Amino acid sequence: MQRVSSTLKSLYSSSSMFAGKMASTTLAARFEQYFTPNALRSYLAEFISTFFYVFAVVGSSMSARKMMPDASSDPSSLVVVAIATAFSLSSAVYIAASVSGGHVNPAVTFGMAVGGRISIPTAIFYWVSQLLGSTMACVLLRVTTVGQHVPTHRIAQEMTGFGASTLEGVLTFALVYTVYSAWDPRRGPLGAIGPLAIGFIAGANVLAAGPFSGGSMNPACSFGSALVGGSFKNQAVYWVGPLMGAAVAGPSL
Amino acid sequence: MQRVSSTLKSLYSSSSMFAGKMASTTLAARFEQYFTPNALRSYLAEFISTFFYVFAVVGSSMSARKMMPDASSDPSSLVVVAIATAFSLSSAVYIAASVSGGHVNPAVTFGMAVGGRISIPTAIFYWVSQLLGSTMACVLLRVTTVGQHVPTHRIAQEMTGFGASTLEGVLTFALVYTVYSAWDPRRGPLGAIGPLAIGFIAGANVLAAGPFSGGSMNPACSFGSALVGGSFKNQAVYWVGPLMGAAVAGPSL
Amino acid sequence: MQRVSSTLKSLYSSSSMFAGKMASTTLAARFEQYFTPNALRSYLAEFISTFFYVFAVVGSSMSARKMMPDASSDPSSLVVVAIATAFSLSSAVYIAASVSGGHVNPAVTFGMAVGGRISIPTAIFYWVSQLLGSTMACVLLRVTTVGQHVPTHRIAQEMTGFGASTLEGVLTFALVYTVYSAWDPRRGPLGAIGPLAIGFIAGANVLAAGPFSGGSMNPACSFGSALVGGSFKNQAVYWVGPLMGAAVAGPSL
Amino acid sequence: MQRVSSTLKSLYSSSSMFAGKMASTTLAARFEQYFTPNALRSYLAEFISTFFYVFAVVGSSMSARKMMPDASSDPSSLVVVAIATAFSLSSAVYIAASVSGGHVNPAVTFGMAVGGRISIPTAIFYWVSQLLGSTMACVLLRVTTVGQHVPTHRIAQEMTGFGASTLEGVLTFALVYTVYSAWDPRRGPLGAIGPLAIGFIAGANVLAAGPFSGGSMNPACSFGSALVGGSFKNQAVYWVGPLMGAAVAGPSL
Repeated sequence: MQRVSSTLKSLYSSSSMFAGKMASTTLAARFEQYFTPNALRSYLAEFISTFFYVFAVVGSSMSARKMMPDASSDPSSLVVVAIATAFSLSSAVYIAASVSGGHVNPAVTFGMAVGGRISIPTAIFYWVSQLLGSTMACVLLRVTTVGQHVPTHRIAQEMTGFGASTLEGVLTFALVYTVYSAWDPRRGPLGAIGPLAIGFIAGANVLAAGPFSGGSMNPACSFGSALVGGSFKNQAVYWVGPLMGAAVAGPSL
Repeated sequence: MQRVSSTLKSLYSSSSMFAGKMASTTLAARFEQYFTPNALRSYLAEFISTFFYVFAVVGSSMSARKMMPDASSDPSSLVVVAIATAFSLSSAVYIAASVSGGHVNPAVTFGMAVGGRISIPTAIFYWVSQLLGSTMACVLLRVTTVGQHVPTHRIAQEMTGFGASTLEGVLTFALVYTVYSAWDPRRGPLGAIGPLAIGFIAGANVLAAGPFSGGSMNPACSFGSALVGGSFKNQAVYWVGPLMGAAVAGPSL
Repeated sequence: MQRVSSTLKSLYSSSSMFAGKMASTTLAARFEQYFTPNALRSYLAEFISTFFYVFAVVGSSMSARKMMPDASSDPSSLVVVAIATAFSLSSAVYIAASVSGGHVNPAVTFGMAVGGRISIPTAIFYWVSQLLGSTMACVLLRVTTVGQHVPTHRIAQEMTGFGASTLEGVLTFALVYTVYSAWDPRRGPLGAIGPLAIGFIAGANVLAAGPFSGGSMNPACSFGSALVGGSFKNQAVYWVGPLMGAAVAGPSL
Repeated sequence: MQRVSSTLKSLYSSSSMFAGKMASTTLAARFEQYFTPNALRSYLAEFISTFFYVFAVVGSSMSARKMMPDASSDPSSLVVVAIATAFSLSSAVYIAASVSGGHVNPAVTFGMAVGGRISIPTAIFYWVSQLLGSTMACVLLRVTTVGQHVPTHRIAQEMTGFGASTLEGVLTFALVYTVYSAWDPRRGPLGAIGPLAIGFIAGANVLAAGPFSGGSMNPACSFGSALVGGSFKNQAVYWVGPLMGAAVAGPSL
C-alpha cells in the first residue's frame, strides 16, 4: 500500500515542472520509511534472533563433534542438534514475534515477500540482518572455542544435489506453512503456542533429514557456517531448496 | 444433523409424484455438501498435516538407521523417533486444528465418526486424504534419499499379532482420548495447549511401545510406509488395534 | 465444609428420639456424596490418567531394556524414561485437570488432603483409582509383551533406604509444589501451561535421580510395577519419601 | 522510585533539627520495606526455585556420570543435562513468576538491577536467596547419594579463561534477553508461554556450549556446586561472563 502510494506520488511528481528536485525528495521519503525507529528495531530483532538461533544450532553440532569425533554415526548426536534447533527456534521466534514478525530465516522472509505480506526492500533489510547475525554467531563460536572447526551442512554421499534440494525444499515448505498458520489471526487461543509449533516442526524435520541433507531449512545458517568454516560446497542446495519451498508455501494458505 | 435433514428430505421426496427426478436432485445436493470450498479445504489440511507428520516420523526412523545400521539396539534411536513423533504431531495438529479439526490419523477420524461428531462421508474423504498424504511422504523420502529403504512398523519376534494389536489399541485409545479431551470446549484457557498434549502423549507412547509393536497408533503412517517399503507383513495389526482403540475412546468421554 | 455440616447433622440427630433410624439415614447421605455422577467421573479420570502415565513410564523402561539389556549404563536410556515421564504426565494431568484436578499420583492427593483442599474420603477413593489404574497398566504391559519382565524402581547399591527416601521426598516436594502453583487461580494467562510445568519438573527430576533412587515420585507407579513385577524390595522408600515430601509441600504455599 | 523518595526524605531529615533521631527512623523505615511479608515471600520463592533448578541440573550431571563414568565423550549425557536444564528452568521460572519475577539466577537479577527494574537491596536479598538455594541443593545431593562427587562446571582444556567467559557471557545475554522479552507486558497472549521460552533457550545453550565452557549461565549454580564439590577452579569465569552478558542485555530492550 505504502509502496503503491509512493509510486503514484513519484509518477505525479515526474509530470510536474520541478520534476528533478521533487523526484529526489520522494526518493528520500521512500527510503526514509525503511529507517524509522520501528523499522530499525525490527532489523535488530532479526539480527539478534538469528544470532541466538545459529549460535545454538551450529554450536550444538560442534559440541557433538567435540564429545564424539565420529558423531555422524551416533543417533544421540542427531538428538543434540534437533533439540537445539527446536528449543532455540521456539525462543528466537518468540522474542522477535511482536517486533519483526519473528522470521529468523531468509526463506521465511522470502515466502512472506512472495505472498505479499512484506515489501521487497523490507525483505532485503531482513536478509542482510539475518546473514550478518548468522555470520557473527559462527565467528564468535570459532573464536571462543579457539579455532574448533565450524561444521557446514553436508549432503549424504549417495545423494544428488537435486535430491537434497528437493528434501530441503519440502522441509522448508513445512516450516513456512507452519509459520503462516501460527500467525493467522483467526487462531484464537491456540495462537499462544505458535512459536512452539514453529520450533517443534523444525526440530522434527532435523530428525527426519539430518543425515541426508543436513536439515538446514535456513540459508542464513548454512551461509554463515560456510563462510566461517571455509567451504561453500553444495551451498546452492541450501538456497535453492528452501527458497523454492518457501515460495510455494507463501501463497498457499 | 445435516444428514438427518437430508434423509428426511429424500423420504419426503420419494412420496411425491416426481420422485424419480427429485431423488436424483437431492442425491446431488447431498454430495455437493462434501465439495464446498470449506470441505475441500479441510481435506487438503488433512492431506498436508498427515504428509508433514509421516515425513518426520518415517524420515526420523530412516535417519537413525542411516547413522547406525543396528539402530534397534540403541535407545537413542528410539529417542529420535519419539521426539520426531511428539514434535511433528504437535505441529501437524496445530496447523490443521481450526480447518479440519486436526485428526492427522484415520483412527482419530474413525473414533470421531463412531462418536457421531462427523458424518460417514466426511470420514471417508478424510481417510483418503490421510492415506494419500502418508503415501506421498514415503514416496518423496524414498526418491530424495536415492532408494534408501523405507522402514515399516514391525512387531517384536516373541510377540503375537493379538498382543501387538492390543498394545496398539491401548496406545491409540490414550491418543484419541486426549484428542477428545483437548477439543472439549469446557477446557477454558487450558485449550491453548491442546496440540502439545496430543503430541506429547503420542511421543510418550512411542517410547513405551517402540521396540514391541512399533508404536504406530496411525494406520495411515503404517499403510504408506508398507506400500512404499513393499511389505505388508502384520499390516492388519496397525489397522485392527488403532481402530478398536479409537472406537472405544470415541463414545467414552 | 460438607463434612462439618454432615457431622453437625449427625450430632443433632443422635440427640433426637429416632436416633437409630436417622443416624443410618445421614450415614447413607454422607456416603452418597461420594457416589454422585461427578464424583464417579473424577475417580474414573484419575484411573484413566494414572493408567496412561504408568503405561508410558514403565513401558519406556521396558523398551530401553529390550533394546539394550544393560540399559543402566547408558545415559540415553535415562533420556527415554525422563521424556516419557515428562510428556505423559503433562498429557495425563491435562486430560484430568478439569474433571478431577489431575492428581495422577497418590502423593499429590495426600498433599491436597493434608492441605485441606479435598476431603479424606475423596482422597481414599482417588488412591484406590490410582492404584488400580497403575496395576492394570502393568498387567497389560506384561501380558502384551509376552511376559517381558516388568521393572521395579530400585535404589543404587551404595545408597541407604533413608537417603533414597529423602531423595524421593525432595523430588516429590518439587512436584507437588509445582502442582499447587499451577492451579493457583491468581496465575492469570500463565495458568494455561500448568500441565506442562508439572510434567517438565517431573521429567527433570527423573534425570536428576534416576540412577540413584529411580525417580519415581509416585507411590502408585512403584506399587503397580512391584505387584506385577513380583518384588516389593524397598517399596517403603517409594511411599515414605513421596508422602513426606507432599505433606510438607501441602500447606507451604 | 521508592529509593529516590526515601533518599529525598533522608536528605530532608538531615537538614532538620532532630537529624540524628529521624535519620535512624528513616533508616529503619528504609529497611522495613525489604522485610514485608511480600518481600520475604519473594526471597523464599527465589530460594525454592533456585533449589529445584540446581537440584535438577547438578543432579542430572551426577546421574550421567553414575551411568557412564566417561560421560564427557557421549553426546547422550549432554542431552541429559540439557533437557534437565530446559525442563527444570521452565518449571522453576513458572512457579516463581508471579511471586518474585522468577529470576532463579543471580545474573538475571543483576541485569534487572542494572536496567533499573529492581532496587539494589532487593537484588542483594535475591542473590543471597539464590546462593543459599543452590548450595543447599548441592549439599542434599551429596548427602543422599552417599558422597557421590558433586561435579563443577569446567572449561575445555584448549580454551582460555577469557574465551570461556565470553562464551558464557553470550549465552547469558541470550537468556536474559529472553527473560526481558517474556515479561514484556505488550506480548499479549504469547505471554502465556514465557517460562517455556526461557527454559528452552537455556537448554539450547547447554547443547551449544556444554563441552566447551559447561553452559552454566548461572553463577549461583556454579558457586553452589564449587562450594560443595570443593573446587573453585575457573569460578571467576562463571561470574564475570554471565554478569557481563546480563549487564549488556539489561538496558538493551
